[in-house]
Amino acid sequence: SDLGGNATAAIAAEINKLAADAFALYVKTKNFHWHMSGPHFRDYHLLLDEQSAQIFATIDPLAERSRKLGQPTLRSIGHIAKLSRIKDNDAEFVSPAEMLEELVSDNKAFTASLRAAHEVASSHNDSATTSILEVYLDESERRTWFLFEASRGADRTGH
Amino acid sequence: SDLGGNATAAIAAEINKLAADAFALYVKTKNFHWHMSGPHFRDYHLLLDEQSAQIFATIDPLAERSRKLGQPTLRSIGHIAKLSRIKDNDAEFVSPAEMLEELVSDNKAFTASLRAAHEVASSHNDSATTSILEVYLDESERRTWFLFEASRGADRTGH
Amino acid sequence: SDLGGNATAAIAAEINKLAADAFALYVKTKNFHWHMSGPHFRDYHLLLDEQSAQIFATIDPLAERSRKLGQPTLRSIGHIAKLSRIKDNDAEFVSPAEMLEELVSDNKAFTASLRAAHEVASSHNDSATTSILEVYLDESERRTWFLFEASRGADRTGH
Amino acid sequence: SDLGGNATAAIAAEINKLAADAFALYVKTKNFHWHMSGPHFRDYHLLLDEQSAQIFATIDPLAERSRKLGQPTLRSIGHIAKLSRIKDNDAEFVSPAEMLEELVSDNKAFTASLRAAHEVASSHNDSATTSILEVYLDESERRTWFLFEASRGADRTGH
Amino acid sequence: SDLGGNATAAIAAEINKLAADAFALYVKTKNFHWHMSGPHFRDYHLLLDEQSAQIFATIDPLAERSRKLGQPTLRSIGHIAKLSRIKDNDAEFVSPAEMLEELVSDNKAFTASLRAAHEVASSHNDSATTSILEVYLDESERRTWFLFEASRGADRTGH
Amino acid sequence: SDLGGNATAAIAAEINKLAADAFALYVKTKNFHWHMSGPHFRDYHLLLDEQSAQIFATIDPLAERSRKLGQPTLRSIGHIAKLSRIKDNDAEFVSPAEMLEELVSDNKAFTASLRAAHEVASSHNDSATTSILEVYLDESERRTWFLFEASRGADRTGH
Amino acid sequence: SDLGGNATAAIAAEINKLAADAFALYVKTKNFHWHMSGPHFRDYHLLLDEQSAQIFATIDPLAERSRKLGQPTLRSIGHIAKLSRIKDNDAEFVSPAEMLEELVSDNKAFTASLRAAHEVASSHNDSATTSILEVYLDESERRTWFLFEASRGADRTGH
Amino acid sequence: SDLGGNATAAIAAEINKLAADAFALYVKTKNFHWHMSGPHFRDYHLLLDEQSAQIFATIDPLAERSRKLGQPTLRSIGHIAKLSRIKDNDAEFVSPAEMLEELVSDNKAFTASLRAAHEVASSHNDSATTSILEVYLDESERRTWFLFEASRGADRTGH
Amino acid sequence: SDLGGNATAAIAAEINKLAADAFALYVKTKNFHWHMSGPHFRDYHLLLDEQSAQIFATIDPLAERSRKLGQPTLRSIGHIAKLSRIKDNDAEFVSPAEMLEELVSDNKAFTASLRAAHEVASSHNDSATTSILEVYLDESERRTWFLFEASRGADRTGH
Amino acid sequence: SDLGGNATAAIAAEINKLAADAFALYVKTKNFHWHMSGPHFRDYHLLLDEQSAQIFATIDPLAERSRKLGQPTLRSIGHIAKLSRIKDNDAEFVSPAEMLEELVSDNKAFTASLRAAHEVASSHNDSATTSILEVYLDESERRTWFLFEASRGADRTGH
Amino acid sequence: SDLGGNATAAIAAEINKLAADAFALYVKTKNFHWHMSGPHFRDYHLLLDEQSAQIFATIDPLAERSRKLGQPTLRSIGHIAKLSRIKDNDAEFVSPAEMLEELVSDNKAFTASLRAAHEVASSHNDSATTSILEVYLDESERRTWFLFEASRGADRTGH
Amino acid sequence: SDLGGNATAAIAAEINKLAADAFALYVKTKNFHWHMSGPHFRDYHLLLDEQSAQIFATIDPLAERSRKLGQPTLRSIGHIAKLSRIKDNDAEFVSPAEMLEELVSDNKAFTASLRAAHEVASSHNDSATTSILEVYLDESERRTWFLFEASRGADRTGH
Repeated sequence: SDLGGNATAAIAAEINKLAADAFALYVKTKNFHWHMSGPHFRDYHLLLDEQSAQIFATIDPLAERSRKLGQPTLRSIGHIAKLSRIKDNDAEFVSPAEMLEELVSDNKAFTASLRAAHEVASSHNDSATTSILEVYLDESERRTWFLFEASRGADRTGH
Repeated sequence: SDLGGNATAAIAAEINKLAADAFALYVKTKNFHWHMSGPHFRDYHLLLDEQSAQIFATIDPLAERSRKLGQPTLRSIGHIAKLSRIKDNDAEFVSPAEMLEELVSDNKAFTASLRAAHEVASSHNDSATTSILEVYLDESERRTWFLFEASRGADRTGH
Repeated sequence: SDLGGNATAAIAAEINKLAADAFALYVKTKNFHWHMSGPHFRDYHLLLDEQSAQIFATIDPLAERSRKLGQPTLRSIGHIAKLSRIKDNDAEFVSPAEMLEELVSDNKAFTASLRAAHEVASSHNDSATTSILEVYLDESERRTWFLFEASRGADRTGH
Repeated sequence: SDLGGNATAAIAAEINKLAADAFALYVKTKNFHWHMSGPHFRDYHLLLDEQSAQIFATIDPLAERSRKLGQPTLRSIGHIAKLSRIKDNDAEFVSPAEMLEELVSDNKAFTASLRAAHEVASSHNDSATTSILEVYLDESERRTWFLFEASRGADRTGH
Repeated sequence: SDLGGNATAAIAAEINKLAADAFALYVKTKNFHWHMSGPHFRDYHLLLDEQSAQIFATIDPLAERSRKLGQPTLRSIGHIAKLSRIKDNDAEFVSPAEMLEELVSDNKAFTASLRAAHEVASSHNDSATTSILEVYLDESERRTWFLFEASRGADRTGH
Repeated sequence: SDLGGNATAAIAAEINKLAADAFALYVKTKNFHWHMSGPHFRDYHLLLDEQSAQIFATIDPLAERSRKLGQPTLRSIGHIAKLSRIKDNDAEFVSPAEMLEELVSDNKAFTASLRAAHEVASSHNDSATTSILEVYLDESERRTWFLFEASRGADRTGH
Repeated sequence: SDLGGNATAAIAAEINKLAADAFALYVKTKNFHWHMSGPHFRDYHLLLDEQSAQIFATIDPLAERSRKLGQPTLRSIGHIAKLSRIKDNDAEFVSPAEMLEELVSDNKAFTASLRAAHEVASSHNDSATTSILEVYLDESERRTWFLFEASRGADRTGH
Repeated sequence: SDLGGNATAAIAAEINKLAADAFALYVKTKNFHWHMSGPHFRDYHLLLDEQSAQIFATIDPLAERSRKLGQPTLRSIGHIAKLSRIKDNDAEFVSPAEMLEELVSDNKAFTASLRAAHEVASSHNDSATTSILEVYLDESERRTWFLFEASRGADRTGH
Repeated sequence: SDLGGNATAAIAAEINKLAADAFALYVKTKNFHWHMSGPHFRDYHLLLDEQSAQIFATIDPLAERSRKLGQPTLRSIGHIAKLSRIKDNDAEFVSPAEMLEELVSDNKAFTASLRAAHEVASSHNDSATTSILEVYLDESERRTWFLFEASRGADRTGH
Repeated sequence: SDLGGNATAAIAAEINKLAADAFALYVKTKNFHWHMSGPHFRDYHLLLDEQSAQIFATIDPLAERSRKLGQPTLRSIGHIAKLSRIKDNDAEFVSPAEMLEELVSDNKAFTASLRAAHEVASSHNDSATTSILEVYLDESERRTWFLFEASRGADRTGH
Repeated sequence: SDLGGNATAAIAAEINKLAADAFALYVKTKNFHWHMSGPHFRDYHLLLDEQSAQIFATIDPLAERSRKLGQPTLRSIGHIAKLSRIKDNDAEFVSPAEMLEELVSDNKAFTASLRAAHEVASSHNDSATTSILEVYLDESERRTWFLFEASRGADRTGH
Repeated sequence: SDLGGNATAAIAAEINKLAADAFALYVKTKNFHWHMSGPHFRDYHLLLDEQSAQIFATIDPLAERSRKLGQPTLRSIGHIAKLSRIKDNDAEFVSPAEMLEELVSDNKAFTASLRAAHEVASSHNDSATTSILEVYLDESERRTWFLFEASRGADRTGH
């Protein structure tokens, strides 16, 4: 790339962490999709399926963006675990309300990470990368909106 | 389920390990898809993309099968890392020939795991599970066939 | 058929009862779909529509399977009423929670009938029939899972 | 509804009987579809499948029309059996010609019931209901035309 | 048109008011779609989106029907404001239950307006117009049914 | 049909004349579509193609409607020529403006014939026929609108 | 066209007669499609519908081919009646066997007319026209084959 | 949102005015689409339909963008009337040329408003919003181009 | 394959014979499709086309199944001729009734061969192969049903 | 190819010139599509877009036809410029009427070139090439027809 | 057919041999598709699958062309073996390079046979047949081009 | 445009050069697509076809962007030749490796030109233009990645 090795290494470092975050957020969203319960079961099961599909669809373009910059990208489950900033939640039972709230804050954090990566790419003039991230920013804010509104006034008993 | 708690726990244990394997094999196949090089680049890039898509498509049905049996399933990247029997390969450079060969043996191992899980489900009379696994067995053997034939006579220099 | 008249008569007897069950379960699921009420109206209305469509789609293949075995199949509403093991519910008002719970147990019973029929077909070596039933077993267990999770923690007032 | 309780009850009573008729006529048409025989097997098998699909497609709109009027609708196989005016035919063997002729008169009777219901709805100014019934009248007359022309000159031996 | 100037002017006057109502009801339904909150967020957000799309789809045919009668139709936001009989609701917070209830009565009023316009068109023998309005009557009654059933037993706190 | 022989013969007589009119109007519209010229060539060529397709689509339903009433229908080009009330225009050159104007009056006449046939069917209670004609009335009035507006202010030189 | 006025006039004369033949054959095929009767009703009704659609699809390309040669084409029902070489059959009752046989000879005659027109176009080097006619020749021979085989061994009583 | 309340309020204020403008421009474009006349009728009728559809498609994303920022959005026809900067044109007759010219300047003004909003969002680092506006800027400039070129050399008589 | 060389050779031997049978049955079904005659021409022509397409669709999966087991498969027309157990019928004229009857017994024989192969695969635990064969068993029994019912009461003169 | 080197070289020479012509005519048609102005803007903009797409679609088949004959084909913009017989028009302003007229004569010239190439291919018995050219001849004559009719009676002021 | 018995017999003899060749070439191409190996496995596996599908698609039209001429066509595997001029290759191992080269010469021979048949049909004025063969000639030359270019510079070791 | 004449002229100058580059790069990519040879023939033939289609799809939006800015755009092959910065390669034989390498550097140069144009548009605040270029930057970097990886380790003999 004509952007120089320092630039591309710095940008790819951000992108690869985002791709790892997306993977982890994808698995957590599916986790809650699979273990949902209560009267809202179908509605939330579908909501989380749609959101997980949207998150998953960002992974390949992010990873390929690194490769287009001439940099390596994700290699394994272990590599993802190392790079990702989204925490695992292996609890046996999570109430629907807690699921929504945890995803609200994970998506907020992901939005912030996207914005940070945008700044890095922008500072190196990599407008192809920023253009992609802008779409993901909007999607991430949309997921947060849905999850936040759905979690308002939720009943603490889990349903 | 009318199959009894011991049966469903035993079957779900197998299924969840398969789902974790599928996740890890998916990531490794994408790893090689992303880092492919040499004159066969496009051909192998597409081959591994098709194979990864086929592997990925098994994860949700496997996880949901556990849930239909009333058992929990995958929860996180860390959970996947713990359950999966596919080894990470984080090497910086892997030649195309080595990629194909490593995937041949991973897919072979996955086939064997599928057959073992089939036996467990079959011994507990869970014919809905066996029916699903039979399709994945055929697909896994097909991936192995393609990878094996493509790796015959390959040049050791990596291309 | 090369399976012999005793075998095909025994298998068809099972299949025709399943087809009649499917008809009755279809009508009950539509009954609840049509008479649903309360804040979850749209969500459950859609859930039961999807489930009824899945149940309905089993009827023609089951009936035609009997015919492929050279045996007769369903003939009329009266015939269905005689063969079906699913109970009518003609109550004027059924609360949403009761609807979900009644369908949980009807689908569980249907699963058990499918497994019993599978055993009969299997004992006579009719692997085309068993292959079809395996798909319906999985679907029936999936419907039960959805209905069960949705009915957890439901409010007894009907909403 | 702004149509008043007497009006909607009277209209719904007609609609629910039509929905029950449609169910019974659907099952009889499928009965003959499944038990067809003779040189015209495929042609009549398909004809009756097309006609049964057209009949089946009227049931949900009819039942939902009752609900839109604020009235209850069909509840079970037993309820259908009680309301329907189409006779069961559980004979073991019915010749193709007899099948076509019996369906000619059942469809004619269904047309007359549709026209009677149309009159009731029209007398109460329920033009949304009449609009739906007009389409079903045309379809019912079309089925009768096809069945009548196909049954002309048919051989009494059954083929 | 061969219907005469008095007839077409009278009919178009009704149609244009309906088109303005549809516009206002469309915007209110979207208003509630955008500002929905609480555990039913996604379900009601989608419900109102589907209903708004159905309402919106009536506007162009209504306006073009006036033009086919040789009469003018809607011209601007101000024109809509003047003709529409649906009240604005600019409140900052509306609870989900209030949203559903307000739409129940708006849709009921719209149904009555449709029926009144049907009478006018019918009295002038304009059967192309009545035919279109009959479909919209059915749709409007359907929206009312959904909204009414969903608002039964709703919790006054807004969720 | 339960409508009686006098009724069906009277209705079919109207319908068959409409079908013949539709054929003749179809051919004339194609005539002008094929022989169009001048700066608006493509626009009018497409307009007349769309209109001819809409007219053509009425012929089969009209003819089949006669058959559903147990009456015969169109048989040949000669039969069409005898029944149709649309005049041939075999002139070598017709200016675009004259084409549009001639079609305006032919479509107006066709609208009037549709309304007359509607009255006959309505007087015999044949609501399946009236329902079909109502759609064609609207389409015919739409074609007239388009042709009329396009012919306003047209240049007499032919372009 | 660079083919010269004599050539294009001669070719267009042939093409326009073919287009008129196609129209007349289309109407006759629909005539028999509408008035079919007997045990083969649905099968022949569909056969003739497919054939009529194939014939109809030749009319626009033939007429436009004349226009591309700078020559006029069909103008009206009367024009078609004058040019067409296919005879009307306005008989009240035609047996199915007679229908098939009459269409066999009409399609044979149409094939011969196509071949004659091909010769004219070919003699003037108009290879765009010959290319189109070759496809229609094949279709016409296919229709003849189907009709001929279906009419073999047919019963003279009409069914 | 991590952008802070001042930022999101400022951006949403701009977005909501754009959404109101889009609504008003949509209605005016439809107004002219419905009341078009003259030889270009069909061409301009379609042009304005395409443009209105493109404008309409911006409303929901703009309104939802405000909601993703945690801000309210449009509520009613009255609210739109208050926020919009596009003037109503309720004149009884507008010539085609005047229609095109008025839309040229309305679209130009809308472009300028989009650019101003872009600046506000950009100054607050809201790159998801700027990314959406960039697409609408291009579309608005395209509509202006089409309208401007079509209005060049237009005849003042209205056609 | 982990099934061992003896197992895979034994299974592949069965599969390759089935693939050869399928080829031969495909050609015979097409032979009768091409040389059909008599009043049922179109109906049987289509029936045999559908059946031939279904048979043809089994060949590639069968052949690839051998390859997935690491065994060779079909190589040529001569190889097919050697392996196939379906007899050629090169008779110049076969009556429709004879065609249907010959295919009844060929399909029955094919069903028996499928069941025999199923037993071999099952005895070697090759559940991917058995799963595929189960679908083909059902299809083969369906073809037999259709052919058998259509051949009942057929006329020996060939039509 | 079995056609011999002299034949294939002669044919390919013709084909490559046609491909270059098509490229140049494509660019000119797009030139006029992009720079169109006046009241017919949208209509002619679309007309030229459709025509340019049709022309563009001939390039790859023409070039590949040369390759199938074992001959080279187009290599670059410079190569196209050298081979093409269509003149560039780089004028700053071309009136719509002049655009249509210039394209009329360019398409006429292209038709003549196609016919000349047809003769060469035909003289060498290359019927695969002639078959392709026949389709392009028809398309080229159709473009000429549309452009010619649209340019009749056009106003010299450019609009 | 109006072409005379000698003509149709001569043409059909050619066509049937071509259909048999196509069958044999289809099987050989699939043979190599199934038994491909080496680094180009996927690429050649797909290439041969595409080519086999293209060859297969010619068989039904060729066979039906004979039937349209009133002549019989292919009947069995044995019949194909007798008529085909393509040699079987039952070798256990064929290197990829040898596969490509053998198919180059088989396709060349098939091209020559197509040209010879074209000459026969052309000499009898059967332009429907020649029109079909022209398309197959182009396809056959295209397959040869691909296979030839792919076999250039291939490595003799088989990979 | 509200951007001012200097700005739009400067931006359009950049865009038109990019459009010309895209044309030239399109033709060169097709050149190599058509003249490819060697064992990778199909793989590279497809690769270059996909890349050429992607490049081609940029031309119309680029040219129309200039027009939206009120500036002229490309006019002819000669104009393209003058503006383009991509060099022609008319060599008779280019080895596959050289083809890939030459395209690597052409695409790199095109990327740099895109970035330069982005800077110009950005400096004039034309965010609609920058938004489009960002997508093309990403695509151009993707093409370079594929071509570069495929050209690694390539054999200098041309295959």
